[in-house]
Amino acid sequence: MSTLRPVAGLAGRLSSSVIKPPLFPRYPRFPHFSSTLSTPPRRPFHRTRLVARYAAYACLSTAFGVFVIGTGILLHDAFTYTEKHANRVPISPLALHPESGGPKNLPIVRVLVDDEEDEENARLADKPKLVIIGGGWGAMGVLDTLHVGDYHVTVVSSETFTTFTPLLPSAAVGTVQVRSLVEPIRKIIARLHGHFVQGKAVDLVMSERLLEVETKTYDGGTTNVYIPYDKLVIAVGSTSSTHGVPGLENCFQLKTIADAQAIRRRIMDNFEMASLPTISPEERKRLLSFVICGGGPTGVETAAEIDDFCQEDIMRYFPKICREEVSIHVIQSREHILNTYSEAISKYAERKFKRDGVNLVTSARVSAVDKETVTYTTKDRDGKTVKHVIPTNFVLWSTGIAMNPFTKRVTDILPNQVHKKAIVVDAHLRVKGAPLGDIYALGDSATVETSVVSHFMDLVEEADKDNNGKINFEEWKIMVKRIKARIPMAEDHLIEVRALFDMYDKDMDNNLSLNELVPLLQDLEKRLTALPATAQVASQQGKYIGKKLHKLARRSQAAQLNNMRPPNDEEVCKPFRYLHLGSLAYIGNAAVFDLGGYSLMGGLAAMYAWRSIYWNEQVSARTRGLLMTDWIIRGVWGRDLSRL
Amino acid sequence: MSTLRPVAGLAGRLSSSVIKPPLFPRYPRFPHFSSTLSTPPRRPFHRTRLVARYAAYACLSTAFGVFVIGTGILLHDAFTYTEKHANRVPISPLALHPESGGPKNLPIVRVLVDDEEDEENARLADKPKLVIIGGGWGAMGVLDTLHVGDYHVTVVSSETFTTFTPLLPSAAVGTVQVRSLVEPIRKIIARLHGHFVQGKAVDLVMSERLLEVETKTYDGGTTNVYIPYDKLVIAVGSTSSTHGVPGLENCFQLKTIADAQAIRRRIMDNFEMASLPTISPEERKRLLSFVICGGGPTGVETAAEIDDFCQEDIMRYFPKICREEVSIHVIQSREHILNTYSEAISKYAERKFKRDGVNLVTSARVSAVDKETVTYTTKDRDGKTVKHVIPTNFVLWSTGIAMNPFTKRVTDILPNQVHKKAIVVDAHLRVKGAPLGDIYALGDSATVETSVVSHFMDLVEEADKDNNGKINFEEWKIMVKRIKARIPMAEDHLIEVRALFDMYDKDMDNNLSLNELVPLLQDLEKRLTALPATAQVASQQGKYIGKKLHKLARRSQAAQLNNMRPPNDEEVCKPFRYLHLGSLAYIGNAAVFDLGGYSLMGGLAAMYAWRSIYWNEQVSARTRGLLMTDWIIRGVWGRDLSRL
Repeated sequence: MSTLRPVAGLAGRLSSSVIKPPLFPRYPRFPHFSSTLSTPPRRPFHRTRLVARYAAYACLSTAFGVFVIGTGILLHDAFTYTEKHANRVPISPLALHPESGGPKNLPIVRVLVDDEEDEENARLADKPKLVIIGGGWGAMGVLDTLHVGDYHVTVVSSETFTTFTPLLPSAAVGTVQVRSLVEPIRKIIARLHGHFVQGKAVDLVMSERLLEVETKTYDGGTTNVYIPYDKLVIAVGSTSSTHGVPGLENCFQLKTIADAQAIRRRIMDNFEMASLPTISPEERKRLLSFVICGGGPTGVETAAEIDDFCQEDIMRYFPKICREEVSIHVIQSREHILNTYSEAISKYAERKFKRDGVNLVTSARVSAVDKETVTYTTKDRDGKTVKHVIPTNFVLWSTGIAMNPFTKRVTDILPNQVHKKAIVVDAHLRVKGAPLGDIYALGDSATVETSVVSHFMDLVEEADKDNNGKINFEEWKIMVKRIKARIPMAEDHLIEVRALFDMYDKDMDNNLSLNELVPLLQDLEKRLTALPATAQVASQQGKYIGKKLHKLARRSQAAQLNNMRPPNDEEVCKPFRYLHLGSLAYIGNAAVFDLGGYSLMGGLAAMYAWRSIYWNEQVSARTRGLLMTDWIIRGVWGRDLSRL
Repeated sequence: MSTLRPVAGLAGRLSSSVIKPPLFPRYPRFPHFSSTLSTPPRRPFHRTRLVARYAAYACLSTAFGVFVIGTGILLHDAFTYTEKHANRVPISPLALHPESGGPKNLPIVRVLVDDEEDEENARLADKPKLVIIGGGWGAMGVLDTLHVGDYHVTVVSSETFTTFTPLLPSAAVGTVQVRSLVEPIRKIIARLHGHFVQGKAVDLVMSERLLEVETKTYDGGTTNVYIPYDKLVIAVGSTSSTHGVPGLENCFQLKTIADAQAIRRRIMDNFEMASLPTISPEERKRLLSFVICGGGPTGVETAAEIDDFCQEDIMRYFPKICREEVSIHVIQSREHILNTYSEAISKYAERKFKRDGVNLVTSARVSAVDKETVTYTTKDRDGKTVKHVIPTNFVLWSTGIAMNPFTKRVTDILPNQVHKKAIVVDAHLRVKGAPLGDIYALGDSATVETSVVSHFMDLVEEADKDNNGKINFEEWKIMVKRIKARIPMAEDHLIEVRALFDMYDKDMDNNLSLNELVPLLQDLEKRLTALPATAQVASQQGKYIGKKLHKLARRSQAAQLNNMRPPNDEEVCKPFRYLHLGSLAYIGNAAVFDLGGYSLMGGLAAMYAWRSIYWNEQVSARTRGLLMTDWIIRGVWGRDLSRL
């Protein structure tokens, strides 16, 4: 113990000179033990000191963590800034001066300007050309599951970025920034060494595999080119519809970033003008009246966000009379809002809105909109139509989609597809009527065929094993399997196999004759509804196509090496099957989740779950970071009130 | 030591059962001491394990810190979301229906709509009315140093936010988001329970203390009101000048957020169009040519940011030919760029630009701009004018300020101020010619009088103690003090007191006669230059006025209680003295600092210092958070390439 003695001595000297406490006390010393052995002064237990100490630890850990991150970024920066230059970039003369051709004699862009600029790109220049039209959920889904090296990928889109549409209502009110919802397409295709052309698809030459694209020129005009393809994916989406309501040019819509920005400016203008000393009380009430037409998720979320905005930021920074005079109206044509969700959820949302003071008008139709009012009609008990007018300075039209012009053009040139609302595709998402396997379509621009009857003869041939022209129960089970394979959507309606068989076996001979079979298939067909036009559907379809294209590429390469014919889609993949993961909606510091059989409704906790799901669904880590920051900044400092 | 034995025993049992190591080894054990005393197996020193352990600590600390922050926010949210409603808000009928009056018989807004809505506001409604026109650096400076409870404060501005102008070049290229540079004025005045009116000041009625303000109406028109004031601060700033160069409507400017957004869209359009397959090589070169007219800080920083953008993001995500064809030109009329900085700094910046490949054209004047080219002239050795033309699709005009229309109106109605370039104020920043103490002006809209000669008789009277009509050296020293007190700017020119005295004492009689004194004061006056029109000057002037207004309010209240007359500005404050803290500029992953006598130039470290200073200068914690995030996000994921 010799080394310890000096330490002990030092400790002794540091403490009071009168008492020399023993270094290791034998028993805990209690005040009532009077003893000649002096006890060290007991440090009293200070709760606040403990809390302070832990708070200090927390601050120190955070500071340390931030320091580490900061140093990391410093080092990253130090190695990222490059003094490289791009000199004598290899580029094909064909890229600089393309040859003309095709029916309209336009330049055919066989080689792009960046096709040969480095090794990676040069290697891909000879691969089959995959052209994707569109920049939304469908196109991003395809890009997500493609593999590098399979195709020379080109994306054609009129906007240079993809938008995270579910959070547009949040951006329209300023809860998140518009920039947190966009990701430049060039960054997404970088992984695949893909190429991007900013333009609008206008026409298609299927015989020569040419896509006609309209691009901008510097003086504001346009010029068209042909882009050749080996495989084409149409993901152009839909535009907004007008439903024939007069005055819709006075309304806002919420489909794009530009919409969200315009809505935000109008909302801020309304509040600023309402705060002016020059406004009459009637005018103030009109300026602060917000009408949302449509009780689906978009409309409900926008109403909820506006209400939050009033409760939190308007209350704090604007004259309180602004808060008092605000009125929010939601006009829904059906009997309930969120009617595509479960009933429990509809009722929950309605109760919440009532509590928040949002004016819910159901079973009402908007008949006209002008610059200063909205007119809607309801039916009273006698069935008479009653007119109502709301003075307003903000109307959001959140219902209805219409066909994209390119989609219309494609349906016009396809045989048997005129007058369709979307491009008809088969269960493998191949466009029907186009050379098989060349063109795919997905999302809002496509509709999966639900015609069971058209497969009638094939189904009978495959199932009727004993060739007696009738289908007994065993053969019926085979036929059910074949139907499900061709049209997976039918699965939900083909569960009660025995009951269906009996129901349509009119003559009760335990056989389905062809006469009995046709009505069965027709009724089945009637029950099949098209997939909803949602981001989830487009995203899943896109990922399916991406995976399939990868498999096709690999099998094609293998087949080529072995001098075999390239594979079909059916040989490579099952048909597309949509899995509904659930629907969410934000209803004002609360959220609802419809997860198929289960519904989840709740307050703050549900709202954080809602945020987590959307946060996870972001298309890149960068937007995740931006979104998290937006929510933190808004939580600490409130929304941004500037009118930009 | 009895309590220790069980512990020792436990330690012994925990370690290997064969050896019983002593608890306190006497000497450090070296491997070459073979001995019967067995040594505990030495743990080998693993450097990687140590690094891994510290990395783990860092991650854990950060995670812990984030967890603490997250919990904090959760708790904050849980207590912030309020279900409060604003009901029956107290509001004066005079606020809803103001009376009309004044020369133009407009509504006089004596009471605002939020004047009585709660206790705090009601208490301030009777205080003297302070009206601040403007929302820039000057106005924010005033708001920064005012104290709650002194005045009923109203801010009149045409934009609802204040802009952090030094970082506009960064926002114009997308390095930071435009929203990180704005702070809503309503949030800044909340501390003072102030009021905000979105409108434009157009006229002034000094005799009745009325400010005429033009506000927007919902249908796009305007309506005017009078806002009464007791004290008025004019901080409207300046607008851009055209210098008489034809074609300036084809140029961009960089004064506001809207400018930065427009520039960003044009830059992205240029790169996207240059990537199209339809562009000819000549057209591509033109699209990628960026011309900046003006070699001051704004122009230099914008050129540097565009160059960074090309090096980092364009290089990675656009066809490399875009990078190759880019050319950046800076046209400066003087001989050096950054000529208001020290010479060392000018040279450093020029060398850096040369290294980066930026084309610097000095001693050149821009003669014309059209949609596709810029024409400038230089003089060759013989003095002949040579014309040069640069094909371009982007021209930034970054020189020259002009008078704000309201400033012009004020100088028109003030006696002796017609044809001035800004409102003349005295050393206390009071507008000369207005009722003394009513109206202040600062920043770009004001110029501090530098007329020494106009104080001649007062100075002589104060200094000539022996009343002999001559000023001897002792009296000269008194006069120097009096000059410095009235015009602090003169201080730098009055250091060599004795030398000045001798220089102007032509008849060498050790006395300055009045005839000798006048040329001295005239020459002094010529040397005094106006303060530069920078953010720093406006900010310091604003803070000075805010402090002074606070002191005046307190002394006025005290004087009122004691039945004394209210104090003058001179009794309360010294005249305004500008302290130049230095100038910074960012020149492309490097920064320069001109700190009066010292210059600091450097690379990454200087850039971080530059960022720290700007980060600290932010007007609110919220914008600091946003800015930090922008820099982090950009550091990790690069700039945003979307064209919004």
